[in-house]
Amino acid sequence: MTPKENIQALRMMMQSQGWDAIVISGTDPHSSEYLPARWQSRRYITGFTGSYGTVVVTHTHAGLWTDSRYFIQATKQLEGTGIELHKLRVPAAIDYPEWLAQNLSAGATVCIDGLCMPLATVEHMKSLFTPKGISIVSSPDFIDTLWSDRPSLPDAKVFELGIEYSGRSRSDKLAWLRNSIAERGCGSILISSLDEIAWTLNIRSQDIAHTPVVIAYLRVSDQEATLYTTEEKFTPPLREALGKDGVTLAPYAQIIEAITTWPTDTPIYIDGNMLNYAIYEQVTAHYGTKVVNATSPIKLEKALKNEVEIAGFRRAYLKDGIVQTRFFRWLECALQDGERISEIDAAEKLISLRKEMDGYIDESFYPISAYGKNAALPHYTANKEECSMLEPHGLYLLDSGAHYLDGTTDITRTIPLGPLTEDEAFDYTCVLQGMIALSLASFPSGTRGANLDVLARMPLWKYNRNYGHGTGHGVGHVLCVHEGPQDMRQNLADQPILPGMITSCEPGMYCEGLYGIRHENMLLCYQDEVNEYGDWLGFMTLTNTYIDTTPLVEELLTDEEKMFIDSFNASVYESLLPHLTEEEASWLKTKTIDCLFEPEEEL
Amino acid sequence: MTPKENIQALRMMMQSQGWDAIVISGTDPHSSEYLPARWQSRRYITGFTGSYGTVVVTHTHAGLWTDSRYFIQATKQLEGTGIELHKLRVPAAIDYPEWLAQNLSAGATVCIDGLCMPLATVEHMKSLFTPKGISIVSSPDFIDTLWSDRPSLPDAKVFELGIEYSGRSRSDKLAWLRNSIAERGCGSILISSLDEIAWTLNIRSQDIAHTPVVIAYLRVSDQEATLYTTEEKFTPPLREALGKDGVTLAPYAQIIEAITTWPTDTPIYIDGNMLNYAIYEQVTAHYGTKVVNATSPIKLEKALKNEVEIAGFRRAYLKDGIVQTRFFRWLECALQDGERISEIDAAEKLISLRKEMDGYIDESFYPISAYGKNAALPHYTANKEECSMLEPHGLYLLDSGAHYLDGTTDITRTIPLGPLTEDEAFDYTCVLQGMIALSLASFPSGTRGANLDVLARMPLWKYNRNYGHGTGHGVGHVLCVHEGPQDMRQNLADQPILPGMITSCEPGMYCEGLYGIRHENMLLCYQDEVNEYGDWLGFMTLTNTYIDTTPLVEELLTDEEKMFIDSFNASVYESLLPHLTEEEASWLKTKTIDCLFEPEEEL
Repeated sequence: MTPKENIQALRMMMQSQGWDAIVISGTDPHSSEYLPARWQSRRYITGFTGSYGTVVVTHTHAGLWTDSRYFIQATKQLEGTGIELHKLRVPAAIDYPEWLAQNLSAGATVCIDGLCMPLATVEHMKSLFTPKGISIVSSPDFIDTLWSDRPSLPDAKVFELGIEYSGRSRSDKLAWLRNSIAERGCGSILISSLDEIAWTLNIRSQDIAHTPVVIAYLRVSDQEATLYTTEEKFTPPLREALGKDGVTLAPYAQIIEAITTWPTDTPIYIDGNMLNYAIYEQVTAHYGTKVVNATSPIKLEKALKNEVEIAGFRRAYLKDGIVQTRFFRWLECALQDGERISEIDAAEKLISLRKEMDGYIDESFYPISAYGKNAALPHYTANKEECSMLEPHGLYLLDSGAHYLDGTTDITRTIPLGPLTEDEAFDYTCVLQGMIALSLASFPSGTRGANLDVLARMPLWKYNRNYGHGTGHGVGHVLCVHEGPQDMRQNLADQPILPGMITSCEPGMYCEGLYGIRHENMLLCYQDEVNEYGDWLGFMTLTNTYIDTTPLVEELLTDEEKMFIDSFNASVYESLLPHLTEEEASWLKTKTIDCLFEPEEEL
Repeated sequence: MTPKENIQALRMMMQSQGWDAIVISGTDPHSSEYLPARWQSRRYITGFTGSYGTVVVTHTHAGLWTDSRYFIQATKQLEGTGIELHKLRVPAAIDYPEWLAQNLSAGATVCIDGLCMPLATVEHMKSLFTPKGISIVSSPDFIDTLWSDRPSLPDAKVFELGIEYSGRSRSDKLAWLRNSIAERGCGSILISSLDEIAWTLNIRSQDIAHTPVVIAYLRVSDQEATLYTTEEKFTPPLREALGKDGVTLAPYAQIIEAITTWPTDTPIYIDGNMLNYAIYEQVTAHYGTKVVNATSPIKLEKALKNEVEIAGFRRAYLKDGIVQTRFFRWLECALQDGERISEIDAAEKLISLRKEMDGYIDESFYPISAYGKNAALPHYTANKEECSMLEPHGLYLLDSGAHYLDGTTDITRTIPLGPLTEDEAFDYTCVLQGMIALSLASFPSGTRGANLDVLARMPLWKYNRNYGHGTGHGVGHVLCVHEGPQDMRQNLADQPILPGMITSCEPGMYCEGLYGIRHENMLLCYQDEVNEYGDWLGFMTLTNTYIDTTPLVEELLTDEEKMFIDSFNASVYESLLPHLTEEEASWLKTKTIDCLFEPEEEL
């Protein structure tokens, strides 16, 4: 069906049910960032392929609310659908709950799918709707009736991430978790975040593209642990291993029913920011006031990478460095030979090179392979029907990453394919200065991303230029490529950056219709000296892919910045050398050692 | 009485009243920063002269809670009193409400003076005490019985700050205020913040040292406005002028009684963060749920200086520049002549020079005149009995300011009195780099102090050094020298820096037992260009006092920093030149034009 027909079908459903509006969040029951096909309802209804947005349909209006990352893409994809784009994160933006509160009359009913909406979102809506006399009704899976070929649950096999990669046994994590919830007076916890479940049980799967987690709910109590999932996906040895640690399996669909059988002698711990509304309703109906609703303790614990995980991340970035050296060399040679290469060709070549590496599982997201003006869309995705051919001028942006058994990568390089304009070279330099400034930061314990973010922006702010996205995000260990609780942005999130956290540093600059630039390294926070002025922290760079220095405007750079670039590129060359063929090594030398601002005589 | 005797007397009172603890906040009924003698109860009880702290007395313990600014001073002043120092803003600090909740038994009673404690503080205590079965009793002015010679209310005359200084008429401000509260559904507002009252009515006084406000409460309703104050302090013409704008006077002591007579047909607006607990109790007893408790709208409005106020600030900084040129010249000559000058002598000389300026009202705080190691205490106050003599080596720190009719100043200079150690010169340079980095910041609208603060710190953080106070604070217009709502610090306060705000920029560096450095300029936020990347703001420096360049370690400075210093010092010289004698001008030339990194041929 076309988006127009979908909206019509939704309105007929509204008519027959007596609903005045439908909200489609387009998330899954687990607040996942990447969704199995089964839950891509926003995309099914509207044709919009972005990863963030909410659809609202009333009898007279159909709208999609999304943020600046997707303005250009959404405008294009919504054309002719009758669905209006509502812009978020712009001055005077009105989000959909406020819009509904303003546009519906008293007595109106808004329908949601309670499984696919987090509690916090529903509570926020209620706080706006109740004073206006608007009510909410939850109708799980209402989309089924108009989505005839809706995909079923994924069935990928589950595998164990051994202690040689995870660095911490399942039994140790379970013991820690039981202790954490006991400190809050709870005898059990219900976890619905898939990455938290995978982390706790040291299991991984490929249920969801780009996120190696298992679709499940996990309940852990003093006595037992039950994983509600598709049992068939677990091999007998893995079931046995889980059983040894006291973890039993139960069918995924039984969760709502199961809740009513759990003992209520002690309070249950839930994270209302992650739990979906339907489950939450069931939990509170059963436990009454014996519910502790707080941030999951796993969220922070998981972000503090242990020594084994950190060593794994280093191996992963080494692998990615090898892959990208091969890729950029291939690209340069192919373009010189006059080959016609599209953005998609390049992305697929990169993926094929990654697949050759030991322990490769999946891309951590589909590569953003963007040439010229396409790179001005920070979350551009090329598609076969309509993608650009790379030409021997201007800038090519490649933002990609992989899951290896060792760890997860995320890296962006923007490289010149030939001559650049002055603006391109200028912005290329400023963006790199931002990445360097944050990478070199030394800061006392307690400092948050909101305090540091400006360092990456100031080289652009200086010229009244800016980028409309955050500077950095946490990265999971063979889990989500975007994870909390820390981030690096202007928002005032009260989470200090702590030793062991791995956070991206990815300033950018986007000129609509012309070009886009982003440089992204991955930073590991480490503990430096403790003195009378504080407990000092710093960043180590994990990324092992060279920075192309040819576009840099040297007079803009300080000596410190030049030293950073030199030592980074020299270290990339040295690290990768043992793993490259002679031809690859000599090519990489031309990109690194031969381009140092201060040539080193020893090398 | 000695502090020991005071504690004993408090315990006897506790015994007879059945109280288990007494909390003395040492604030006044108006949450003022500087207190009339009448309300300096913390100082009276303990002998501690710092501006921040809370005293708690139980039957077995007496403690003073204060922050890092006062650790050294409090340790010294509490010696032998039996009062223990509890440090705040250090790792694992426990504030007094938590301490009381931990140390008192169920059924215990804590006595406070409800007039001298803001509602928010009492509510915080209650949230901790109630679960523990601890109750709070408010006994206004309980200190009276043991403070036999307690000073009475101040009686300074009140004067009008004419529109030529305030830039906005009283009637216009009252109309704006009535409109603001009507938008929140309120028909009246009760204001207890003295600077908000003074701003609204364009009145000033010298009731309180260093803060030219009038002790009063103000109620403004649709129909009328009543100022509860000491009526005798108002001249007949001023009463008449107020009367013309519908403002009548009533006795200060009648406020509690008066509340019970106010009509309750419309809700009343109060700011619970500023209102004292005793008044709040009376308001809620009378109005029930018809109370809107929110930040006063005056707080932000007052911070956005109008054109007339800004012009006044410029004149005030010009006056202060003249004064400080005269002062530093006098100091240099006097020391060269071998005169013996103490920290107090210097402070008094500065004040005497300021008093010669037109429109001088008062110092905006008593000068921090600190030589050598004394400057390592950021809020050091010299006193006659025990203060240092200035010697021809090391650093002298002078942090001072004044209220002129034109505006309020606050400025710190640290100057070398002779040879410096390498560390002194190094830190002097880094601190100045911090001040320059923030002064040069360009930032999009929406940026908060918490986002920018790091710019002033990074030149120190780079070397794992830091200062333990905020970088900046707002400044009132002939009002409090410290005012909100904006600030410049690591704390996540959600107030963007807006055009018209005037904020100090004062990084420092303190080496206990050795030296202290602080450089402080005053920055006016202004609107710069609007482009596709944002609505850009920047800072203009208002301060007109030269920066001594002789201690600067030139190799640490970038070209941009040198240019800033050169253009700042050249502009100071040019601005002050018309107002100086020939001798003064030629002396200032040696400190500015003769010291430029890049000598300008024109000058």
